[in-house]
Amino acid sequence: MSTVGILGGGQLARMLALAGAPLGLQFLVVDNEPSACASQVAPLLRADYRDFVALEEFAKRIDVATFDFENVPAETAQWLTEHTRVFPNPRALAVAQDRLEEKTLFHSLGLETPAFAAVDSRIDIETAVAKVGFPAVLKTRRLGYDGKGQYRLRSAADLDPAWAALGGVPLILEAWIAFEREVSVIAVRAQDGEFRTYPLTQNWHADGILSMSLAPAPQVENLSASAFAHARAVAEKLDYVGVFALELFVVDGKLLGNEMAPRVHNSGHWTIEGTACSQFENHVRAVLGLPLGDTTAIGSSVMFNWIGSLPDARPVLAESRAHWHDYGKTSRAGRKVGHATLCAADNIEMSRRLARVARALDREAQAAPVLEALQR
Amino acid sequence: MSTVGILGGGQLARMLALAGAPLGLQFLVVDNEPSACASQVAPLLRADYRDFVALEEFAKRIDVATFDFENVPAETAQWLTEHTRVFPNPRALAVAQDRLEEKTLFHSLGLETPAFAAVDSRIDIETAVAKVGFPAVLKTRRLGYDGKGQYRLRSAADLDPAWAALGGVPLILEAWIAFEREVSVIAVRAQDGEFRTYPLTQNWHADGILSMSLAPAPQVENLSASAFAHARAVAEKLDYVGVFALELFVVDGKLLGNEMAPRVHNSGHWTIEGTACSQFENHVRAVLGLPLGDTTAIGSSVMFNWIGSLPDARPVLAESRAHWHDYGKTSRAGRKVGHATLCAADNIEMSRRLARVARALDREAQAAPVLEALQR
Repeated sequence: MSTVGILGGGQLARMLALAGAPLGLQFLVVDNEPSACASQVAPLLRADYRDFVALEEFAKRIDVATFDFENVPAETAQWLTEHTRVFPNPRALAVAQDRLEEKTLFHSLGLETPAFAAVDSRIDIETAVAKVGFPAVLKTRRLGYDGKGQYRLRSAADLDPAWAALGGVPLILEAWIAFEREVSVIAVRAQDGEFRTYPLTQNWHADGILSMSLAPAPQVENLSASAFAHARAVAEKLDYVGVFALELFVVDGKLLGNEMAPRVHNSGHWTIEGTACSQFENHVRAVLGLPLGDTTAIGSSVMFNWIGSLPDARPVLAESRAHWHDYGKTSRAGRKVGHATLCAADNIEMSRRLARVARALDREAQAAPVLEALQR
Repeated sequence: MSTVGILGGGQLARMLALAGAPLGLQFLVVDNEPSACASQVAPLLRADYRDFVALEEFAKRIDVATFDFENVPAETAQWLTEHTRVFPNPRALAVAQDRLEEKTLFHSLGLETPAFAAVDSRIDIETAVAKVGFPAVLKTRRLGYDGKGQYRLRSAADLDPAWAALGGVPLILEAWIAFEREVSVIAVRAQDGEFRTYPLTQNWHADGILSMSLAPAPQVENLSASAFAHARAVAEKLDYVGVFALELFVVDGKLLGNEMAPRVHNSGHWTIEGTACSQFENHVRAVLGLPLGDTTAIGSSVMFNWIGSLPDARPVLAESRAHWHDYGKTSRAGRKVGHATLCAADNIEMSRRLARVARALDREAQAAPVLEALQR
């Protein structure tokens, strides 16, 4: 019986462990937080990611290590490769951790991105703005997620406050893009190089955090092949093993690379019920060298993200083909505490179901753009 | 956050805990066996079912108690009702534990059964045989499962050896029935009386243990309504809450009651992937008073039971819409150690998938009757 070690004990680790249990796998989660929600379904090794004594115990107890948290220190990922098998590899992790390296990689592989420039000092911002223009977004190169570590620049007057807010760590200035849509590729690559993608997912954000996903994304006939080819090129370049997400903007009907997440991803949660083999099961299969599973969508799926606190579960539980996911966390503003997925045979049935659930939960504004996309 | 207590820590408890985790539930399993396989996914309270000191701790830590093991002592179930909420209720459990009470109940509700008679002494066998005839099966009234505690009677010569093997506990003699088919109803009843059934499942046994299930059972148009009505009558009579199975024989196109299992059931494992809300999730919903979930079948499902040891998982993992379930147990003759479920859009796709998997696993004999039923 194999044991999979996971660095990070959040909802992603929790859903990995739940997906792996039917395969007869055991899990061991490392997290510094005793209440890490994955510890409700898998044993927890409470330790800091730089506690190499604890990590030695971790490495001894597992067969392979993987990540729920993408910002594990580079030296930890490297150290682990010397003590156990690690997927994805530390280089892939390092590239995905750094917005500048990530975008540079995209460019080298022919995937265009919004204009960007490195910013390492106050004076660099002027040069970067000259290249990128306004509006733009100044971002930390590392450790940013869900809209954190970002400052929007509308004019020269924003430069000083932006530097005051973020200066002192490596930054990147990116052109602010008025995109038509945001889509993501959830892909999985096996140790033998086999590569599979789930159907393209369309995503909507609120306050920088994913709010809703719809899969398969509608009207992407002209985009899917290109999106999948880009994801494959990235995965092969990094010799990536496991599941990852590639977030893309659609601008004037063309794809621009936004970022990649070197792990299972919030925009792929719909795969739990919307496909025969979820992103979580496929990630576990990939890191263990098992055959990859079916990534075909079974009908249409819509995911609601629950941020801060959970709404009443009953209207979702009472609906047909509706699935509730409570991560077992306490409520806190901005925190991802759960999600719900609605499944349906087709977009017409989905529209009805979604409208009914949104009304019952008083979430009509949240669901409105998805309903609009379904009816187009 | 609610905690569900489960008496018994086998694969049923394991699958209940895995189904309940996404609902944000916690579980606590009582089992005397430290290696009980449910303990890999939920906390274990190691105790005997008659250890009332341990049960007091158990009752304090949970919100509701239910069962993975139907043969929990009656006094334990009764004691629990005085210390916590318990579903199903002890009377339902007691009736289902005793083959004589069970069959007597079926009769009282208009569900015919094979002829039967109580046997409490050696002399009773003669009277029972006079009533039931040969061939017949002498069975213990309590604690029998998977063909254990049974002795087949072909002629008067078998009476002494049968009594020698089983005598000393309350017995029942049942007519041995050459049934055409065996089907089961998996049903769920809520605390408010709402009642739902999954489509009828057809089952095949080998050596008294379930070997294969096919759902929805083919050609049951004339049987389903009657089977569901019998299940409902039994549930209402017992004020049953939760999931249960009613096993039925089809003889000359008519239904005969065989037995009921007051718990989630092996012949309902296909519901994990074959429906939007599995028997495990629906049982948890029922005992917690949550709305019941959708019991409609999504396409066709076939379950292989793995007895004794697991075959190679890879041919199943490599197939589309095929699902592997390893219970995390060690191998042992006659032990249920896992199952696999194949799903398909229709019977034609299922026939191809099933034939391919059976061939790859060298299980063509096991799968043959299911293939035949699919092609009829």
